[in-house]
Amino acid sequence: MKLNDNIVALATPSGAGAIAVIRVSGPDAVKLVAPVFKAKSKKGLLEQPSHTLHLGNIIDGERILDEVLVSVFHGPKSYTGENTIEISCHGSPYIQQEIIQLLIRKGCRSAEAGEFTLRAFLNGKMDLSQAEAVADLISSENQASHQMAMQQMRGGFSNEIQKLRQELLNFASLIELELDFAEEDVEFANRDEFQNLVSRIQNVLKRLIDSFAVGNVLKNGIPVAIVGEPNVGKSTLLNALLNEERAIVSEIAGTTRDTIEDEISIGGIGFRFIDTAGIRETEDVVESIGIKRTFEKISQAQVVVFLLDAEKFEVQDSKFKVEIEKIKNQFPQKPLIIVANKVDRLSDAQIEELNVSLSSVEGSSYLPISAKSGEGVEELQQKLLQFVNTGELRNNNTIVTNSRHYNALLSALEEINKVQDGLNNNLSGDLLAIDIREALHYFGEITGEITNDDLLGNIFANFCIGSRIC
Amino acid sequence: MKLNDNIVALATPSGAGAIAVIRVSGPDAVKLVAPVFKAKSKKGLLEQPSHTLHLGNIIDGERILDEVLVSVFHGPKSYTGENTIEISCHGSPYIQQEIIQLLIRKGCRSAEAGEFTLRAFLNGKMDLSQAEAVADLISSENQASHQMAMQQMRGGFSNEIQKLRQELLNFASLIELELDFAEEDVEFANRDEFQNLVSRIQNVLKRLIDSFAVGNVLKNGIPVAIVGEPNVGKSTLLNALLNEERAIVSEIAGTTRDTIEDEISIGGIGFRFIDTAGIRETEDVVESIGIKRTFEKISQAQVVVFLLDAEKFEVQDSKFKVEIEKIKNQFPQKPLIIVANKVDRLSDAQIEELNVSLSSVEGSSYLPISAKSGEGVEELQQKLLQFVNTGELRNNNTIVTNSRHYNALLSALEEINKVQDGLNNNLSGDLLAIDIREALHYFGEITGEITNDDLLGNIFANFCIGSRIC
Repeated sequence: MKLNDNIVALATPSGAGAIAVIRVSGPDAVKLVAPVFKAKSKKGLLEQPSHTLHLGNIIDGERILDEVLVSVFHGPKSYTGENTIEISCHGSPYIQQEIIQLLIRKGCRSAEAGEFTLRAFLNGKMDLSQAEAVADLISSENQASHQMAMQQMRGGFSNEIQKLRQELLNFASLIELELDFAEEDVEFANRDEFQNLVSRIQNVLKRLIDSFAVGNVLKNGIPVAIVGEPNVGKSTLLNALLNEERAIVSEIAGTTRDTIEDEISIGGIGFRFIDTAGIRETEDVVESIGIKRTFEKISQAQVVVFLLDAEKFEVQDSKFKVEIEKIKNQFPQKPLIIVANKVDRLSDAQIEELNVSLSSVEGSSYLPISAKSGEGVEELQQKLLQFVNTGELRNNNTIVTNSRHYNALLSALEEINKVQDGLNNNLSGDLLAIDIREALHYFGEITGEITNDDLLGNIFANFCIGSRIC
Repeated sequence: MKLNDNIVALATPSGAGAIAVIRVSGPDAVKLVAPVFKAKSKKGLLEQPSHTLHLGNIIDGERILDEVLVSVFHGPKSYTGENTIEISCHGSPYIQQEIIQLLIRKGCRSAEAGEFTLRAFLNGKMDLSQAEAVADLISSENQASHQMAMQQMRGGFSNEIQKLRQELLNFASLIELELDFAEEDVEFANRDEFQNLVSRIQNVLKRLIDSFAVGNVLKNGIPVAIVGEPNVGKSTLLNALLNEERAIVSEIAGTTRDTIEDEISIGGIGFRFIDTAGIRETEDVVESIGIKRTFEKISQAQVVVFLLDAEKFEVQDSKFKVEIEKIKNQFPQKPLIIVANKVDRLSDAQIEELNVSLSSVEGSSYLPISAKSGEGVEELQQKLLQFVNTGELRNNNTIVTNSRHYNALLSALEEINKVQDGLNNNLSGDLLAIDIREALHYFGEITGEITNDDLLGNIFANFCIGSRIC
């Protein structure tokens, strides 16, 4: 991991905008930019104090590339901990390229994925789990994923791990000290206190490991399978669920969301709606590919919404019950919500008949709605939220969202359990120490106290996919 | 045009990036941001000097929205000339929205298209033609359009207009002064000097008006019609022409160009390639829609490239000559380049035969190339560049690119011509003065000395289309 060169990259999203920001970091960041920056003021960049802004032109020989605003940061008081220049230029992709190319000609290297954040980690500005949270934060799409990333970036998770690690380290040292005095048979490490610590660590690890199920799903969005034929009003329903969010989106001109059809934020939680073809065909062709696919998608979902067109629904129709039956048989534990859409088109008597027929279906909840008029949509949102365990989120508990951390925690718990066994069996200090060191290793991997180039390469190579270089 | 409120908008392109910048401008910009910004340092934002950067958190009550870097600018030393805050936050679209929404709740108004630049104009930071150049600069895609926008933004065009306007204004004042002394029959304005000035103004206006033909085409890209059937190698040719640019593009990871197929920059000049269906069908159905469309497209182009597959070309084939004939008949003045692609697949003898046959076609240039191997591609680029009048660009002359300016210049010239007529006919000072005032009016419209809400509304409503709010 080289830190003695100077890297450059676009820091803002690609495309045209009012402005774009180009970031240069490295020991000579200021020195490299100074000759291509002609400031409006008399002082050169090299004489400017940290955390100041300067108007001027980026020049390539005689040619003026752009009028820009340059921010000066002297290390270690910068994002990377190194000397840093941020050039705020006019947001034309052409200008962005020209300035970056100029800086590369002047001696900068094009930064690699995640390299600015990697440097922040290597320079001790943040630990590894905090660095990883930066990528999560940038890709956060709703309140839940934002809150979890923010907590991790601000060190909530590291602090918890760090504290346990420190206590465990103290005991490890005491036990290893005993080994030095092996012949005297002393016990520096109080075994009761140690037992107490091991129990506490086990509890914390178990809680963190358990939180991953919630964290993972909150980070990636709760998968909801919609079973329903075409024209039952799927997209109208998604739009109705999206209503509040879309109002916000359109208010900020130009903000578009690519995945508007698939992922919807309800009450700050992301839901991924998985469209399925339905299972109508089953009566005729039992093992059709369509059903198989639908069942596969349902198996990936956490909740199933069975959407039907109330207007076309015939209470006497037994097909429908067969379909529900099939789903319940296959997935007896999976929550199922039967949603009858387009109730605005029914008479009161028809609605009553529908309610009687559908609310009696065993093992499911039933909701009459009108995606068009909005009737019942809020109830559906509330029902979906019921299936999410947001307790940990609400209580601001540390939630594990990163599978690398999850695996390290599992390994740490395994080692701690061995330590526990050792204590139970009065294992000798030298053997105990080995297991403790192993557990400490996994703790250290999470925060990056223990690391290597391969591990860092893996983490940062896929950093901020699809975004600028972070 | 209100200037007493505070506006907010995302300044960087939409989407995810390492960072995004949110801009707040208005009399209370600092006051509005200060309560939601918790700085790491002890001093509040209100106490910070202009042009400084501050690390801290954006908070919404108890909730931390993001760790950000805040730039402080005190008016008039800012882009808009007003107090301005730029918040550099993590580039998640969710975070961008949350911060903007928070600021709107705290009293900011969502900025309209071009509103920051409009304010810069209204606050005297730039004239109207410079403000318009900002939008051109942001949408510039190659060296030529960049250079023209840059020159205009830096006031090259305004200075030229401004100087003429001032001289004309002086004469207008003298002539109007004569009117006050009408009974004494004095002549304050030397008619010879005035005639001289009028001639100079006419020359400058004519040159500027003439430059629009070049400017307009350089700004929007030189239209080149490619006549050629499918599979003659059109897209391979476009890729070959694009070669150098693409190398640059791919070096800066994530930089994508939407219009890669259509617009290509050669030697810093944009070329728009218009694909046509060819005119093979003509022998059978004379008035087919296909031919009509091809001819329409050719009529819009400045150059025609007739692309054929050398391998499939039969020298004896008369069809080809008929097609060329048709184009030459219809567009006798339009430059035509016959390009024989895939010559790498021919023997030397075949190439010789081809050369003899094709270079003899009257009123056209001929080029054998291989888009695949790159042979002849540079020659084609050079040939295309020959058809562009880049003299004005090379000599760094002022080039008019904006049709609003063009129309104002045409009107100004019309009025100046009337003044000329008046001088020739010894028109009385009061009548001369009217025409001079009219000419001055049009000069003033270009730089924005004379303006109204409608004009500004028109200019800024379509400002920076598809980009963030400038």
